[in-house]
Amino acid sequence: MMRRFVAERARKLFISSSSSSPSRYFNSSSSCITPQSNSNRIINQSKPAAASITQNPFFFLNRNCRYYSTYSDYIFGKNPPTSSTTMSSSSYPDSVTIDKINPKVLQCEYAVRGAIVIQAQHLQEEIKANPGSHPFDEILYCNIGNPQSLGQQPITFFREVLALCDHPSILDKSETQGLFSADSIERAWQILDQIPGRATGAYSHSQGVKCLRDAVAAGIAARDGYPADPNDIFLTDGASPAVHMMMQLLISSEKDGVLCPIPQYPLYSASIALHGGSLVPYYLDEATGWGLEVSELKKQLEDAKSKGITVRSLVVINPGNPTGQVLAEENQRAIVEFCKKENLVLLADEVYQENVYVEDKSFHSFKKVARSMGYGEKDISLVSFQSVSKGYHGECGKRGGYMEVTGFSPDVREQIYKVASVNLCSNISGQILASLVMNPPKVGDESYESYSDEKNGILSSLARRAKALEDAFNSLEGVTCNKAEGAMYLFPRIHLPQKAIKAAEAAKTAPDAFYAKRLLEATGIVVVPGSGFGQVPGTWHIRCTILPQEEKIPAIITRLTDFHQAFMAEYHD
Amino acid sequence: MMRRFVAERARKLFISSSSSSPSRYFNSSSSCITPQSNSNRIINQSKPAAASITQNPFFFLNRNCRYYSTYSDYIFGKNPPTSSTTMSSSSYPDSVTIDKINPKVLQCEYAVRGAIVIQAQHLQEEIKANPGSHPFDEILYCNIGNPQSLGQQPITFFREVLALCDHPSILDKSETQGLFSADSIERAWQILDQIPGRATGAYSHSQGVKCLRDAVAAGIAARDGYPADPNDIFLTDGASPAVHMMMQLLISSEKDGVLCPIPQYPLYSASIALHGGSLVPYYLDEATGWGLEVSELKKQLEDAKSKGITVRSLVVINPGNPTGQVLAEENQRAIVEFCKKENLVLLADEVYQENVYVEDKSFHSFKKVARSMGYGEKDISLVSFQSVSKGYHGECGKRGGYMEVTGFSPDVREQIYKVASVNLCSNISGQILASLVMNPPKVGDESYESYSDEKNGILSSLARRAKALEDAFNSLEGVTCNKAEGAMYLFPRIHLPQKAIKAAEAAKTAPDAFYAKRLLEATGIVVVPGSGFGQVPGTWHIRCTILPQEEKIPAIITRLTDFHQAFMAEYHD
Repeated sequence: MMRRFVAERARKLFISSSSSSPSRYFNSSSSCITPQSNSNRIINQSKPAAASITQNPFFFLNRNCRYYSTYSDYIFGKNPPTSSTTMSSSSYPDSVTIDKINPKVLQCEYAVRGAIVIQAQHLQEEIKANPGSHPFDEILYCNIGNPQSLGQQPITFFREVLALCDHPSILDKSETQGLFSADSIERAWQILDQIPGRATGAYSHSQGVKCLRDAVAAGIAARDGYPADPNDIFLTDGASPAVHMMMQLLISSEKDGVLCPIPQYPLYSASIALHGGSLVPYYLDEATGWGLEVSELKKQLEDAKSKGITVRSLVVINPGNPTGQVLAEENQRAIVEFCKKENLVLLADEVYQENVYVEDKSFHSFKKVARSMGYGEKDISLVSFQSVSKGYHGECGKRGGYMEVTGFSPDVREQIYKVASVNLCSNISGQILASLVMNPPKVGDESYESYSDEKNGILSSLARRAKALEDAFNSLEGVTCNKAEGAMYLFPRIHLPQKAIKAAEAAKTAPDAFYAKRLLEATGIVVVPGSGFGQVPGTWHIRCTILPQEEKIPAIITRLTDFHQAFMAEYHD
Repeated sequence: MMRRFVAERARKLFISSSSSSPSRYFNSSSSCITPQSNSNRIINQSKPAAASITQNPFFFLNRNCRYYSTYSDYIFGKNPPTSSTTMSSSSYPDSVTIDKINPKVLQCEYAVRGAIVIQAQHLQEEIKANPGSHPFDEILYCNIGNPQSLGQQPITFFREVLALCDHPSILDKSETQGLFSADSIERAWQILDQIPGRATGAYSHSQGVKCLRDAVAAGIAARDGYPADPNDIFLTDGASPAVHMMMQLLISSEKDGVLCPIPQYPLYSASIALHGGSLVPYYLDEATGWGLEVSELKKQLEDAKSKGITVRSLVVINPGNPTGQVLAEENQRAIVEFCKKENLVLLADEVYQENVYVEDKSFHSFKKVARSMGYGEKDISLVSFQSVSKGYHGECGKRGGYMEVTGFSPDVREQIYKVASVNLCSNISGQILASLVMNPPKVGDESYESYSDEKNGILSSLARRAKALEDAFNSLEGVTCNKAEGAMYLFPRIHLPQKAIKAAEAAKTAPDAFYAKRLLEATGIVVVPGSGFGQVPGTWHIRCTILPQEEKIPAIITRLTDFHQAFMAEYHD
């Protein structure tokens, strides 16, 4: 019933798109900015999307440009799993129906928690209810950068300070000395003494507690060697709300464009869709380790301009998600120069700044790069996003993070502050954790050694896991995998046989989703199809995290290899 | 420089509004839905707003309907305080300027943290730098429901559980027995055992950890005597993001209307503005203790319809903010009937459900009321918002809360889930706290007595403070104050003398903002002008919280009384 309804709606939208007005240019399927050139349009207006999968493999991202909620269709074809609570829609009050809700909501997609993950949760319940019902006994979530869900332990010092700030009345008790390190107790006092009334249960300043912003700014200054101003810091519930806040500010209509890497982390496409803007894609070059070419930025910017789009901003994710590359400083300088020349706000997603696994690369913040070129506040508008969810600590559940906002005039800053104030403030534990991440124990502190061991243990293990999985993918027939220089992901390319592509087409499913679904059903391993991130037409990828615990990696590699061999045998051309 | 720019922009907008197209109807000042009737329009198109203050005292809310960022102007007139970082805007990159940003952002206002509070923060810095520089030695923030910022202590049991969940490795240690209650240790184990891998540092399910939603649902069922489904619960970072999520779903354009009480909590006007919808005001009747009349709802609904607005939803805040009334059950039944008949989504802001201070009233959830009328999932779409920030616990800084979503079809629910998943999940500490608030210690638990004492101590003190402040306001010349039946606020009406209104007009400031500003400058007491919430034209109010600690109340009353007498003497007609 529901599927029929969605299909009906999709049909109507295809029809109506042909009469869309010029101002809706970027919401009509025939006019989305195309991945390569105008000759390479994604969805042929006269055909339903499913029929054009093989010609236009980028279609999911382009369907994203339409009023069209079909990620489930796309992953599952005609037979989506239904949740136990699914009932006929017609029996509900019709105050809210799919055709009455905000089309921007319908348009938004977020593959990292999309249909494959829903199917995985479904399988997990089945395994629990009927052990042995599937050829695996656990689901391995490699879909999302969520290290602690896979057994990574939190950094002790951080958790000590959080616990003490949550329950300050134990700070004076003698038993506390036996349970907590001396420097965690001292740090908790320092923090509490600077929060008015020691009230960790009070709303803070809308940008976050001042002393915690001071700590974050000091951490940035120490990292970069250039000053940072606590008034530029907005502490946020993870990086996602900060990204939304900036998109909300920058996007007025579909005439406002944001240059985003392809492949990209789908928060960006989702946020741009929710705010009604246009995603202007620029392609990372897989052949050069997902290199970011300024010539490609220029080309896409010009292309967007020619379509009446004003590009407001450039998103750069460094280290890359899902692509794992770490930008060279020289490349960053060229990007800064481009933004300055083209008058773009540089939105720098730097949440993986601690996650670099190779000797010959290191992280440089865009602010440091810009300042080193002599560009200050008056020269470039730059926002850096950071999160406590990533790094070596991986404190995803704490929802802490910040954005550092530089190069904006006071009247615009006032508007950002106002929007932050509507939600009052981010959670104080997350704020405290953001300050700890940017100002961890130092040499000489009681916790330094254990902190340092925990951190290095996690990072070196991640580096080994990345290498092992990268090698495993590269050893598979028809698979080429990038080097995981940083971040938490591999994004291997799967050269699928025509027979597999045809089978996917028959199932009205994208080929990479078809592969991912089969992988899940055979092994319990959850990955995200490349289409959720965007990819060059004609190529198919999956995103796989490097996060399962190290002792599980060999078994994962075996399962993956066995599955892939069987899959290729089944579909060999 | 900046002020000049804003004024210039405002002038342009006035001009352009006269040529606005029909689709922009609700964004043009001449066509905002008016508080009483069409004959009572707020901003005369031919005059600048400031000149029409006295004729149209509702103007701030109506200015809200315009592309116009002037809350500071409105509070401060021509001489706003400038922050120390204020610089000439022209020296910044012009990639983002006020006239390039999203007009919906400019349009949004949030008075609770608006210009008066910025001035208060300014004064606080001056007092710190130069003690004795003002006729008071501290700022008393009565602008915001933030109890712990004013010295209220957190509930011990809640903080014990949070600390243990933050640092589970102490759970096994012997010292922990001496520091924490047995039932807090047990509760922490219970929670951790049901979080996969005991990982409080992992992203949860996008709706929140299942066992915590189970606890919330059980708490709702116990409260109402009707079942609640954990799959209906979305745990959120406080109630504000939940309200935004629903507005985002319901609002496609300015043709979508949301019925909101006037006076209202400005989160609603801000969220509607940010999502580009139309606020359709309905007036609470001050004469009957801020009564909510269904006849008024009908009238405003019809009025909106006649203007081409489709009303999608009704917001009810119970207990009321800023108005403090508690709805009678019979009244609630009539509201439910109205929503069912008119096919509206009932958005029930029930964050003050624990804050009822009078013997003859009690809180009934709208879900309970609807179910008691025999209306189930298929009859009415209903969302209830709850927050850990309010109640007796007042844990604002923890950013916990939930919405219970009932009466929506599975395909629409899928869309809500998708939007929740883009931000991954709310913070786990807030999630845990939401479960504790809805499932506190029970008779027989070790903590029950202390928990109960702390809770009752806070609630009975709040009741005494509410009564003392209510009486104090009512004893002032020209002031009438509602009974504080619930919530955390008084909303007294100030009958200002004509001379004061003229002085405000001369300062290009709204009369209630003029009064609030003078009160702040004379006493350090921060209240919010009624215009920030909306009020019947020709009436002036302030919102004052009942939250300063009890021992400070007499001094506050004295300062308030002295100020008011001097003010009235100065401006006596």
